[in-house]
Amino acid sequence: MNGPQVLIVMGSDSDVAIMEEAAKVLDEFGVAWEMRVASAHRSPKKAAALASGAAGRGVKAIIAGAGMAAHLAGVIAADTVLPVIAVPIPGGALNGVDALYAMVQMPGGIPVATMAIGKAGAKNAGLLSVQIIALGDSALTAKLQEYKQTMADEVEAKDRALQERLGNS
Amino acid sequence: MNGPQVLIVMGSDSDVAIMEEAAKVLDEFGVAWEMRVASAHRSPKKAAALASGAAGRGVKAIIAGAGMAAHLAGVIAADTVLPVIAVPIPGGALNGVDALYAMVQMPGGIPVATMAIGKAGAKNAGLLSVQIIALGDSALTAKLQEYKQTMADEVEAKDRALQERLGNS
Amino acid sequence: MNGPQVLIVMGSDSDVAIMEEAAKVLDEFGVAWEMRVASAHRSPKKAAALASGAAGRGVKAIIAGAGMAAHLAGVIAADTVLPVIAVPIPGGALNGVDALYAMVQMPGGIPVATMAIGKAGAKNAGLLSVQIIALGDSALTAKLQEYKQTMADEVEAKDRALQERLGNS
Amino acid sequence: MNGPQVLIVMGSDSDVAIMEEAAKVLDEFGVAWEMRVASAHRSPKKAAALASGAAGRGVKAIIAGAGMAAHLAGVIAADTVLPVIAVPIPGGALNGVDALYAMVQMPGGIPVATMAIGKAGAKNAGLLSVQIIALGDSALTAKLQEYKQTMADEVEAKDRALQERLGNS
Amino acid sequence: MNGPQVLIVMGSDSDVAIMEEAAKVLDEFGVAWEMRVASAHRSPKKAAALASGAAGRGVKAIIAGAGMAAHLAGVIAADTVLPVIAVPIPGGALNGVDALYAMVQMPGGIPVATMAIGKAGAKNAGLLSVQIIALGDSALTAKLQEYKQTMADEVEAKDRALQERLGNS
Amino acid sequence: MNGPQVLIVMGSDSDVAIMEEAAKVLDEFGVAWEMRVASAHRSPKKAAALASGAAGRGVKAIIAGAGMAAHLAGVIAADTVLPVIAVPIPGGALNGVDALYAMVQMPGGIPVATMAIGKAGAKNAGLLSVQIIALGDSALTAKLQEYKQTMADEVEAKDRALQERLGNS
Amino acid sequence: MNGPQVLIVMGSDSDVAIMEEAAKVLDEFGVAWEMRVASAHRSPKKAAALASGAAGRGVKAIIAGAGMAAHLAGVIAADTVLPVIAVPIPGGALNGVDALYAMVQMPGGIPVATMAIGKAGAKNAGLLSVQIIALGDSALTAKLQEYKQTMADEVEAKDRALQERLGNS
Amino acid sequence: MNGPQVLIVMGSDSDVAIMEEAAKVLDEFGVAWEMRVASAHRSPKKAAALASGAAGRGVKAIIAGAGMAAHLAGVIAADTVLPVIAVPIPGGALNGVDALYAMVQMPGGIPVATMAIGKAGAKNAGLLSVQIIALGDSALTAKLQEYKQTMADEVEAKDRALQERLGNS
Repeated sequence: MNGPQVLIVMGSDSDVAIMEEAAKVLDEFGVAWEMRVASAHRSPKKAAALASGAAGRGVKAIIAGAGMAAHLAGVIAADTVLPVIAVPIPGGALNGVDALYAMVQMPGGIPVATMAIGKAGAKNAGLLSVQIIALGDSALTAKLQEYKQTMADEVEAKDRALQERLGNS
Repeated sequence: MNGPQVLIVMGSDSDVAIMEEAAKVLDEFGVAWEMRVASAHRSPKKAAALASGAAGRGVKAIIAGAGMAAHLAGVIAADTVLPVIAVPIPGGALNGVDALYAMVQMPGGIPVATMAIGKAGAKNAGLLSVQIIALGDSALTAKLQEYKQTMADEVEAKDRALQERLGNS
Repeated sequence: MNGPQVLIVMGSDSDVAIMEEAAKVLDEFGVAWEMRVASAHRSPKKAAALASGAAGRGVKAIIAGAGMAAHLAGVIAADTVLPVIAVPIPGGALNGVDALYAMVQMPGGIPVATMAIGKAGAKNAGLLSVQIIALGDSALTAKLQEYKQTMADEVEAKDRALQERLGNS
Repeated sequence: MNGPQVLIVMGSDSDVAIMEEAAKVLDEFGVAWEMRVASAHRSPKKAAALASGAAGRGVKAIIAGAGMAAHLAGVIAADTVLPVIAVPIPGGALNGVDALYAMVQMPGGIPVATMAIGKAGAKNAGLLSVQIIALGDSALTAKLQEYKQTMADEVEAKDRALQERLGNS
Repeated sequence: MNGPQVLIVMGSDSDVAIMEEAAKVLDEFGVAWEMRVASAHRSPKKAAALASGAAGRGVKAIIAGAGMAAHLAGVIAADTVLPVIAVPIPGGALNGVDALYAMVQMPGGIPVATMAIGKAGAKNAGLLSVQIIALGDSALTAKLQEYKQTMADEVEAKDRALQERLGNS
Repeated sequence: MNGPQVLIVMGSDSDVAIMEEAAKVLDEFGVAWEMRVASAHRSPKKAAALASGAAGRGVKAIIAGAGMAAHLAGVIAADTVLPVIAVPIPGGALNGVDALYAMVQMPGGIPVATMAIGKAGAKNAGLLSVQIIALGDSALTAKLQEYKQTMADEVEAKDRALQERLGNS
Repeated sequence: MNGPQVLIVMGSDSDVAIMEEAAKVLDEFGVAWEMRVASAHRSPKKAAALASGAAGRGVKAIIAGAGMAAHLAGVIAADTVLPVIAVPIPGGALNGVDALYAMVQMPGGIPVATMAIGKAGAKNAGLLSVQIIALGDSALTAKLQEYKQTMADEVEAKDRALQERLGNS
Repeated sequence: MNGPQVLIVMGSDSDVAIMEEAAKVLDEFGVAWEMRVASAHRSPKKAAALASGAAGRGVKAIIAGAGMAAHLAGVIAADTVLPVIAVPIPGGALNGVDALYAMVQMPGGIPVATMAIGKAGAKNAGLLSVQIIALGDSALTAKLQEYKQTMADEVEAKDRALQERLGNS
């Protein structure tokens, strides 16, 4: 199938700067994605349609980013049986704690896989999508193992650079 | 019109013990109400249908009670232009702070009139409905003024009882 | 009646930048408003007088914005049976959580319809006022439905713009 | 003067169990007190009258206890230049954090001397009143110094009892 | 493959009462699971071994439940490229907020799919596992769709029961 | 007596910018003050000496400002029977919530009159000191009443200015 | 030296039930301890004397447990250069968050090694004392390594018991 | 022994600006230190190896700094019986409260000595290390006593400077 495997939805186009962290990770792994703006409150029918139509188009996971009383992930999860991954967007007076609680505290029956508030969460949403898709794609699993090794190598390199800076080399 | 003027919706029938505080107030004022169970996540179509059909049936205000990641009020507000009043239901590990944030922190465009967590909030949701309906019903306005006076009288009575108990009478 | 239908009160003139979001919405809907400065603590008599006199002047809803230990909405609600809508103003070390709790956690008997902290809350306070007034004004109801449709259209337009930016058009 | 020197006001007679801790301390020091029920929201005129009339009756300090969106202390402070001491009452879903924030975060111009949530706070409200009155009463100052010594002696006695229990005597 | 498809790990056997909610859901869907006790702090080698060996045994998703400074999910995620799902266990003075923050706020690179605190979270962890496995198993997808329909039917039944209780049938 | 009537102590000279709000108010009322740096942790003997010696020098109230784990007010209150007023200083990662809790939650026996976090709190600490001293100084009481009137007048003036700006004059 | 190596101080004898968890661990390791009651506020001189005299009596670490505005650990740390370990005691309306912030947020210059709120924290305070003393006592180091192994063995045993219960043995 | 006595580990090289406060203190006291980058999640084997190898190289205390879901200190404590000191790094949407809870709320059996969030905490981590090492080094104890005296002198100097600025000299 040539369509997107991951659907990234966000409540407002002002969230792109955070949500594109997910897209970058997906690009690194060669996983096709689609990014859409839809609001649980201002365009509920569109959000529901994106959710209910995703599986039929070959989408394997949906990432939803929203801020404040962030209902988008829950509303999407209500209309699909695909895994839904939530990214709380920081901002506003409560700086994302509201979005975190509104996403992670889902009642039993409708899971939403919640990530950290902000860019780290968006990046991890991309990675979790890859981990899910990799269950049926051994090449992707190998790439994930390389990615893990690269992270360890980067820590190692940063440690060596620090030792040099401290004159311990 | 003989139908209900206030629609009380709750996410689970376990919320009745709290939400009936709203119904009791409405009964005191002789305002007809309807109480329904509908979930933003488990029965989203039903929630949306209740919301979009309410105005046509003569409903003037919708009260929504829900706990945890409480999306019900927001989801209803997305599908109606009637005033929507939210009651955060306590319970779970965060005891209603999650529901409060998920209700009160609505983004611009979709107002949700949020009350206190729990029974006090449910009672006030009933009263706010009456205040709204009273704008077009001067008899109801008079009853609200009496209600206010009764509250002041009750405080007075409690104060006198306390003075007697303390031997100051 | 030609007087204001919505009374906007704020505890300090430094809150105008936030509270004018409510006025802008009312202007959009052609609803007359009045904006006043009155403090629950520094000018309690004035606040009480504004509250108790509002209904007689044709006011249908009162919006109160205040920060920190924000008593203004509660103090106004104590002296009127009109619907009172609260906007917690951010700022100070607790950035509006104090104002939110001081507004939303009203005890039973005195409802205060609380909105989100800050500008989103002020905008929604304006909209809720319109929804309340629209119950007795079908032209206003029609405008609210158009407003909802416009919001959905704007989401659609932002989504299309994003698709073009991403080269998916 | 034979009238009360300290006026204890509470928002509801259900707060007596906590607020009587203040009265007990005042009894220990022989300071006359008066305990009243008055609500900032349900009987605002009574609360204001108690506040504005207190100084004329010889009251030196006012203690106000309230829960949830606890406006009582602030509303009283608005109508008196006497020192006002606040006791946040625990209870409800937020268990007194709401009352604490609604009391301690007073804006500049209207001080409210806030104590701990609950019984410890009520006891300390009594003690602070005594400290204030003692500034003009050297016998009371001497009693406060004895009280301090007694507290230190009690700690000493508890420590000795613990040593005996542990077999170190 | 006949081995477990979902590995449920918990930091202490006192967490079984919560984590068995995940197992119950998996049983409902006929997905084989294994439940193990391993601690990130008291038996770190065992936790790492369970994590690194899981994929080789055919496990598709790992659910980790822990309380307080809940490192278990993160420590497991460090040693596998399988999806890791976290359930914050309530308890202790902070009642699970500590566990929630210690699980959901993972830095970029190591995703942990965090659920609600407590039983609702454990149940949803089971469901998310099923959703993930269902991507490669269309029979399971059909069962998930039935499960969703059953939830909606149960809400409907509860609503009807409420109507009967209220005498509206 | 010619010495200071109010002793203002702060944990660090970086707190002067906030604590001078208290001094400004005292200057306005013609109440003599002394401002000292002393730390509960870095110079405990000095803090204790300032506390225990204050009453003998004619001090009537002690204001203590500190940040983070703010023990200064409590440590001073342990060594005096004068009223002690606490000002939580904002700053650090918790921005003063830590200082607020460390000041307001005093156990029974040692009252600390806690004000709002930051400048509003420092200003109110000055005012509370004046209110306390005014109990024995009727000229000061008159000034406090004028101050209250001036605040009300300023609100009135701001309201008029706003009306002019809005074109309602 | 035959005197105690660890001094356990608590603000009130009601804290014994929690603080004895530290004593139990010290007994397990054969480290002598002394347990005392002293209050930072009610008996400040005693607290200071215990702190300043500890090193001279051979004490190697001081454990301080206190609740609410928990100043005890900081006040002790001000008067000793021994390591001071803090245990926040739960209770009161904030259930130990106040004590945690009042202990852990110490300003630079006066370290306080803070543990978890409650019994887990008290137990770990005992263990940290042993770890500190073990730096100069290799037999104790060996015991700590055994203790760690025993913990791992216990997790293993609990896991086996769970497998048997689940019928996997 | 010539190797480092204190091992400072941090999860990311971006934490150096904070963690070098610990190193500066150690330099002041002439205690040798080593600073390393290792991540609990991205390089778990390296973190474990640093922990388990430290005692053998003569390290007496390990300081671990990390942000967000900060598992580093706990993961290190799992693999050593040396005292482990934790510094929560501020940053991200929760600004270090997440790191604080993830560090301080360690379950019984694995102590982590937690410091304040940020630079004050890092400085105190250095000082606590010195206090621990000083138990076996009387020269270091003497330096700690001088350090304490210097802090008191600096407070004194700041107080004198303030008096001069205020014209009280």
